[in-house]
Amino acid sequence: MNIKRALISLWDKKGAEELAKSLQKMGVEIVSTGNTARFLKDSGVSVTPVEEVTGSPEILDGRVKTLHPKIHGGILAKESEAHQGELDKLDIKRIDLVAVNLYPFTEVIKSKDTDLDTALENIDIGGPTMVRAAAKNYNKCIVLVDTQDYSLILDKLKTQGDISKELRKELAVKAFSHTAQYDGAITEYLSGGKFLSILAEKKDTLRYGENPHQQADVFVNSSDTSASLLNATKISGKQLSYNNYNDADAALNAVMEFGSKKPAVVAVKHATPCGIAQGENLKSAFINARKCDEKSIFGGIVAVNTEVDESTAKEMNKIFLEIIIAPSFTKEALEVLQKKKNLRLLKVDFSKGEASCELKSINGGLLRQSKNQSRFLTKDITVACGELPKDKMDEVMFAYKSVKHVKSNAIAVTKGTSTVGLGCGATKRIDAACKALEQAKENGGGEILASDAFFPFEDVVNIAADYKIKYILQPGGSKNDDLSIEACRKHGITLIMTGMRHFKH
Amino acid sequence: MNIKRALISLWDKKGAEELAKSLQKMGVEIVSTGNTARFLKDSGVSVTPVEEVTGSPEILDGRVKTLHPKIHGGILAKESEAHQGELDKLDIKRIDLVAVNLYPFTEVIKSKDTDLDTALENIDIGGPTMVRAAAKNYNKCIVLVDTQDYSLILDKLKTQGDISKELRKELAVKAFSHTAQYDGAITEYLSGGKFLSILAEKKDTLRYGENPHQQADVFVNSSDTSASLLNATKISGKQLSYNNYNDADAALNAVMEFGSKKPAVVAVKHATPCGIAQGENLKSAFINARKCDEKSIFGGIVAVNTEVDESTAKEMNKIFLEIIIAPSFTKEALEVLQKKKNLRLLKVDFSKGEASCELKSINGGLLRQSKNQSRFLTKDITVACGELPKDKMDEVMFAYKSVKHVKSNAIAVTKGTSTVGLGCGATKRIDAACKALEQAKENGGGEILASDAFFPFEDVVNIAADYKIKYILQPGGSKNDDLSIEACRKHGITLIMTGMRHFKH
Repeated sequence: MNIKRALISLWDKKGAEELAKSLQKMGVEIVSTGNTARFLKDSGVSVTPVEEVTGSPEILDGRVKTLHPKIHGGILAKESEAHQGELDKLDIKRIDLVAVNLYPFTEVIKSKDTDLDTALENIDIGGPTMVRAAAKNYNKCIVLVDTQDYSLILDKLKTQGDISKELRKELAVKAFSHTAQYDGAITEYLSGGKFLSILAEKKDTLRYGENPHQQADVFVNSSDTSASLLNATKISGKQLSYNNYNDADAALNAVMEFGSKKPAVVAVKHATPCGIAQGENLKSAFINARKCDEKSIFGGIVAVNTEVDESTAKEMNKIFLEIIIAPSFTKEALEVLQKKKNLRLLKVDFSKGEASCELKSINGGLLRQSKNQSRFLTKDITVACGELPKDKMDEVMFAYKSVKHVKSNAIAVTKGTSTVGLGCGATKRIDAACKALEQAKENGGGEILASDAFFPFEDVVNIAADYKIKYILQPGGSKNDDLSIEACRKHGITLIMTGMRHFKH
Repeated sequence: MNIKRALISLWDKKGAEELAKSLQKMGVEIVSTGNTARFLKDSGVSVTPVEEVTGSPEILDGRVKTLHPKIHGGILAKESEAHQGELDKLDIKRIDLVAVNLYPFTEVIKSKDTDLDTALENIDIGGPTMVRAAAKNYNKCIVLVDTQDYSLILDKLKTQGDISKELRKELAVKAFSHTAQYDGAITEYLSGGKFLSILAEKKDTLRYGENPHQQADVFVNSSDTSASLLNATKISGKQLSYNNYNDADAALNAVMEFGSKKPAVVAVKHATPCGIAQGENLKSAFINARKCDEKSIFGGIVAVNTEVDESTAKEMNKIFLEIIIAPSFTKEALEVLQKKKNLRLLKVDFSKGEASCELKSINGGLLRQSKNQSRFLTKDITVACGELPKDKMDEVMFAYKSVKHVKSNAIAVTKGTSTVGLGCGATKRIDAACKALEQAKENGGGEILASDAFFPFEDVVNIAADYKIKYILQPGGSKNDDLSIEACRKHGITLIMTGMRHFKH
């Protein structure tokens, strides 16, 4: 066994007793500091106090205890005669394993009671130094920062007397990711949010990016634990592509808009919905979402907010879909859907909710914004002209929620709680309106028209009237609002002002 | 003067002599290590070697020299009687200033000669420890990691004998951002790219995000030095909004596609072009880009690839624009444009080129892809049917470059080197084609139709024929390519296969 001396200094003492006892059983000397030493002694482990190794007292309330050549010489010496000679001359024993985890700075600063002095007090200096030193010299010193790694390492040591170079390196990577994240969090905190720190771990190298000649990867951001494709259970099907991730994320966000009380279905193509519907049951909602645009949904992604049952699955199987996202699938539904080998089925835990913010790079930097998590509140709306019967509110709310997830400029034309026409991604509002209304006409006509932003002119109202729209929903706020109101009055259209814009690009 | 002892240990010795000499003149004792000590001595500075302070030799090829209680006690002791008592008892002198910068790990790993052992050798342990210790205890110990800060600090010390708490804290933030970035780079390297590390500094808190109820910020990523809005010179006008940044970045990327030889203009609205043109001079290019969609360009963003002159500026001033981006503006052009108080004029150094990759968050993580930097090569195209005269190549190339920057599904209809119809953001290709062709007709008709992705059916060809399109440009690769080729043959349209898809969402 190559491990003779281990240094253990832990904030999180989970698994510490087992680690120390197992090492000791293998004949490893345990060096430890302050609280950890006390904890291990109480657990019946023989411990060499770090002061005994350094010959120096712990000083300044523990600020300095391990920052000493006897410790760091022991961690940092390479496998060489010269280095061994220096160690021998100075009577420094090698340290072959360092198990250190840091005081959870991010937890400390979350507490409202934490003032600046307390936060500073909780910045660990000795811990990261040991972690970094061991990680640099991983060929000679094993570094453990994750309590979950203890059992694997102990197993290997027991059976093989050492661990492989590859595993040592993996642990070193983990160690540096730990200190990078730690200092990133300190930087964000001390700067009052002037810095943005991200350390994300690759989940997959993707086949390619938006196009075959672009390389792409997907990373997990461990600080974002929202309902996501990254913590989804892939029940079947091959790896997701870049465009799959992008589209499926849009579908997931859109379907979460509808809560979980009433079945809802969102079909997405090119990162924007091509059909949305709510229904008394999932099957009817799916049929109506599909009906909105039978061509665009081909090869699309569908997200639903309730369990997929057999009858819905059979409807889904009638067309070619890339991905279905749901909180769950019945056994019977799975049997139906898994007949299609390439169809990806993703089970997402919707209860984890939405992410709080989103990032997008631009040349030279990043844009960050809080996600558009505004909710429709009936009290916030104004009926600018016409009547809004109470029994129309569900349908109005559906139109509002739908248009919010369509790419700008966006117009959604709805009938009941189904979209029948969607205009998206247009540079002029009137173009989006014309497209949505024409599509609605082909689908038998719509009743409500919702716009993601205000009308600069009355043109959308006038064309909506040609298509027999009865209700129009828009934020309002244009200096020409009165023109739109006047036009609605003339055409007998009820105009509802939501007061809230929903651009999405 | 409160500063009695300074510890200087520098990789980058820029300004070190001046720093040390000035401090010494103020009566500060200079403690230094290895190469830095030699460098300072050679410059005529009296230096206390760190070994004299620690009483310990530098060991293990410099791996351990400052990791010692005499150093870290001196850096980390708080302003308290208890701490002072401990220092006195152990004969530790306070260190009041630490000037340390780290071996540039990112530079080292860029070199092809750097193997793993060399990289590991270049991971600094002592340096980051001193930096972090001083930054934690910034109230007592000034920390300098940036050579550019020396003169300000020296000035303050000379005139006031100390620096403010606020400035000390700012320097501490810089110190932690330095170590966070350092360990992030090490993590990326050692993991072979399994981690993505970003530490970005806020440039601005924006008024709001895509919508008024969303909060937003823009951050500078110092590792991305591409031509960008973030290193642009804002000649006039108010702060950019979130949507401005997003739109302007799209405009900048699109105009860079056209190089700098022939004047090009891109007008953007809702993050997608609404008019693109190249011309013999900038004025005619601008007029043609504007003509494509006189309504959408209203309140839009215009990027151009050559200097804005007076005559172009006069044309630009005829409509309401939010932002103009250019490599430069003549004095006369500025006089014209600055009459509009709210118009933002941004001068961008195009020679810095494009960013190499882009990021986008999804719930739970991030998507990263290399940017779509493919260039049109005439050798890669295939003429599937009809004739392609050589003198049409410029126009074909223009159509190809234009459609690449339009949001998918995208169709660009062009005449000469101007877009006359743009269909964008559609969930069905045929919808984008209909919109673009109808717009082109209103603009007097187009000659070339370019598609960002292949045709799944021959429907686009057939409708293009109705609108008298002569050339069609598409990647090809559909299993139904033969249907499109056959349709083109029937209609006497030249079909050009580019072999390269350009989805953009």
